[in-house]
Amino acid sequence: MRDVAIVGAGMTKFGKFLDKGMKELTAEAVNNALSSAGIDKQKLDVAVVGNATAGLITGQEMIRGQVVLRDMGIGGIPIINTENACASSSTAFHVAWMYVASGMYDAALVVGMEKLYHEDKTRSFKAIGSAVDVEWVQNMQAQAKAAQEKAAAKTGETPAPDAGAGEKRSMFMDFYAAFARSHMQKYGTTKEQFARVAVKNHYHGSLNPNAQYREEYSLEDILTSPPVAEPLTRLMCSPIGDGAAATILVSADKAKQFTTKPVFVRASVLGSGFDRKPGEPGPTERVSQKAYEMAGVGPEDLNVVECHDASAPAELVIYEELGLCAEGEGGQFIDSRAPYVDGPIPVNPSGGLISKGHPIGATGVAQIYEIFTQLRGEAGDRQVKNPKVGLTENGGGMVKGDPAALSVHIFSL
Amino acid sequence: MRDVAIVGAGMTKFGKFLDKGMKELTAEAVNNALSSAGIDKQKLDVAVVGNATAGLITGQEMIRGQVVLRDMGIGGIPIINTENACASSSTAFHVAWMYVASGMYDAALVVGMEKLYHEDKTRSFKAIGSAVDVEWVQNMQAQAKAAQEKAAAKTGETPAPDAGAGEKRSMFMDFYAAFARSHMQKYGTTKEQFARVAVKNHYHGSLNPNAQYREEYSLEDILTSPPVAEPLTRLMCSPIGDGAAATILVSADKAKQFTTKPVFVRASVLGSGFDRKPGEPGPTERVSQKAYEMAGVGPEDLNVVECHDASAPAELVIYEELGLCAEGEGGQFIDSRAPYVDGPIPVNPSGGLISKGHPIGATGVAQIYEIFTQLRGEAGDRQVKNPKVGLTENGGGMVKGDPAALSVHIFSL
Repeated sequence: MRDVAIVGAGMTKFGKFLDKGMKELTAEAVNNALSSAGIDKQKLDVAVVGNATAGLITGQEMIRGQVVLRDMGIGGIPIINTENACASSSTAFHVAWMYVASGMYDAALVVGMEKLYHEDKTRSFKAIGSAVDVEWVQNMQAQAKAAQEKAAAKTGETPAPDAGAGEKRSMFMDFYAAFARSHMQKYGTTKEQFARVAVKNHYHGSLNPNAQYREEYSLEDILTSPPVAEPLTRLMCSPIGDGAAATILVSADKAKQFTTKPVFVRASVLGSGFDRKPGEPGPTERVSQKAYEMAGVGPEDLNVVECHDASAPAELVIYEELGLCAEGEGGQFIDSRAPYVDGPIPVNPSGGLISKGHPIGATGVAQIYEIFTQLRGEAGDRQVKNPKVGLTENGGGMVKGDPAALSVHIFSL
Repeated sequence: MRDVAIVGAGMTKFGKFLDKGMKELTAEAVNNALSSAGIDKQKLDVAVVGNATAGLITGQEMIRGQVVLRDMGIGGIPIINTENACASSSTAFHVAWMYVASGMYDAALVVGMEKLYHEDKTRSFKAIGSAVDVEWVQNMQAQAKAAQEKAAAKTGETPAPDAGAGEKRSMFMDFYAAFARSHMQKYGTTKEQFARVAVKNHYHGSLNPNAQYREEYSLEDILTSPPVAEPLTRLMCSPIGDGAAATILVSADKAKQFTTKPVFVRASVLGSGFDRKPGEPGPTERVSQKAYEMAGVGPEDLNVVECHDASAPAELVIYEELGLCAEGEGGQFIDSRAPYVDGPIPVNPSGGLISKGHPIGATGVAQIYEIFTQLRGEAGDRQVKNPKVGLTENGGGMVKGDPAALSVHIFSL
C-alpha cells in the first residue's frame, strides 16, 4: 500500500444552528477543505461521507452524502455513506484512506456531518439512543420495569414513576458513570481528577474559535454543575451539537502539488469490542497497539492527541489505554497537567468533545482536522509547540457493553 | 492491488417474514456463506454490512452490522456499515473487496440485509421514500400542490384530493414510468416489450427456490395486472420484501485453501450520476465501461448478468447501457429471447428484483450470490450453461433525477 497525505482540511464552528441544514454545514466545511488544499472539486475521484442520525432526525436516509454534495456541484464520482455511531466519520476517513493507499484513486474527499439540534428535542435523544442494540436495551428496560413493579407489589409501595432517562438524556452517560465509579473503586481515582479533565478541556475550548463552548471553568464550577449520574456533572459531559468537517486525501507522491505542508497518514486502524475476558487487553489498547505497529511509533513519540472524551472519565481512562501513562494512573496524569496544551503530551487541545462539541458524525473528521492544523502549526492560541506526530482516537456506539466501533489514526509531518 | 476471490456465499429466501428480525435473517445468510466457504467465523478479519432502512423501520440506526453480527458471535474485528439506498450492499462488497485487494486484510465478510415488511406499512413506504433528496422532493411537492390549488381557484373547481402516492407506493415507479414512456417515444419500444421482460423474470423466478414470487405469468397476465403508472403494471415492478445475503472474500492466493471453485473478482467499480449532458454517456455506461476496462473483457465476453430490474423498463434499458445490444434495441433484444436462461446472454436468471424480490439492502449481495452460484454450476433448475464470466449491475437512490449510486462488478472462474 502506498503512502497517503492530507493536503487540506476544513470545519464549521460546532454549535446549535437551527437555521442551518446539513447542506449548508457540509458546504462550509468542504469549501474550507478545498481551499485549504487549493484543489478544484472537479479533481476529486471519490467521496466518503460519515453521518449517524440524519435518517432519524430529518428523514434523509440512504444517500445522505450524495444529497449534501450535489448542491455544491460534487457528483458523478463514487460516493459512499458510512455509519458507525460516533465513529462514523473516522470510519469514512479510513475507507477514503484505503481508496488512496490501495492505488484505486488519487484524490479523496472525506466528510463528517451531523445536525443533532431539532425543534423537537425528543428526536435528538431518540436518534442518539440508536447507537446501541435497540432491541436488547428495550428488553432490558422492560425486564427492569417488570421487576420493579413486582417488588413494589410485594411491599405495597407505589413504583417510582418512570423518569424516562433514555428519552431525556443519552443512556451513554449512565454507562460512563458506572465505568467511572469502577475506576474510582479499583484505583482510588477521585471525582476531582475527573473534573480536572473537564477543567482542561474547557480551558482548551476557550482558545478554539470553532468550539461550541468557549468559557473557562474552575474545578469548583465543574463539581457544582448539575449532576448527571454520580460522579458525572453536566460540565464533564459532551453536549449535543451541529457541525461538519472535511479533509482531502491524496497519494503522498502528489501531495507537494497542493501544499508545502502535507500531513502524512502513518496508521489507519478500525476495530470493535467483543466479550473482553479478564486480563486481556481492551479494545482501545488492541486497536491503538495495532496503529502504533503500523506507524512504527510508540506512545512516547506522540506530541499531540485528540481523543474521544464523550465524558471526562472516558478521557482519563483513554490516557491509560493509549499508553500515555500506566494503568490506573490516569488520575495522577491529569493532576500533573501533562495533557495541557503546554504540557509534555497535550490531549484534546481543541477542547475535545466536552468543549469543542460533539455533532457525532462530524467528530471523527474534526479530530483529524485538529491534528492536521496542529502539525502544520496553524492552531493559533491553542497551538502545541512544534508537534511532529499526532494521534486521534474515536469511539462509536455500544453493543451489549462493548464498543461497537473504534478507530485510531496516527499522523506525522 | 492483488486479486480477490469469493470462496463462499449464502442467502435467505426473499419474502415477507413478519416473524423474523434482522438478526435471524442475517444469521441464516451468514451461516450459509460460512459453511459454503468452509471457513470458521473466527478467521474473519473484517466485516462490511449494507442496509438501507433499518433506522427508519426498526429504529436501529448507526451500528446495524455490529448488532446483527454480535448475537452470532462475530465481533472484535473492524465492522463498517455502508448505505447507498438499493446499492447499499454492493457498496459494502466494494469496500470489502478493497480491504482484501489492498492487502490490508485477508478474509472479509460482506452482508446485505433488509426488513421492509412491518406491521405499520406506512413505515416501509416512508423509508423507501428516503432514497431521494427528501428536502428537494418535499419542496417540489409543495410547489405542485400550490400551483394546483391556484389553478383550481381560477376555474372554480375543487382540487383533486391528494392521492398521497408517495405514502402508498414508491415514487420511483413514477420515475420509471416516465422513463419508459420516453423510450417508447424515442425508439418505438412497446408496452408488450416491457411486459416480456417481466414474463422472463417471473419465469426465471419460478425456477429459483429463494425467489419471493414463484409463479409464471403470460404476457396477457402481465399486461392486465393492476396498473401502477402507464405503461407499468404491478407485475412489471419489484415488490418490497425481507431478506439477507452474504459472501466471503479472501485473497486469491488463499482461495484454494477453502474451495476448489473460487470465483474471482475481476472488476469492482462504484459511481454516481450527475447532470448528464446530451450526447454524453449515461452513468451506467460510464461505470460499466470502467468495469470492462478493469476486467479486460467486453459485453461480448459475458455469459450471465444480474441487473437492477427495479422495473421491467429499467432492465430493458440496462441491456443497452451494458452494451448487450445497441442503443434503442432493448425491445428487439427481449423479443429475441436472448436474455432467457437458455439464451446467448441470460439476464437475471435468479428472477431479478421483479420476481426474486428486492429487500433493498440485500439486493446487491444477492446478485453476487447468484453469479457465484451460476459460475460454480450450482444453480439447479435455473443453471446457465457453462458460464465463465458474469456481471452484476446494481443501482441505488436518486438525486434530482440522477442515480445516486451505481455499481458494476465482473466475476470469472
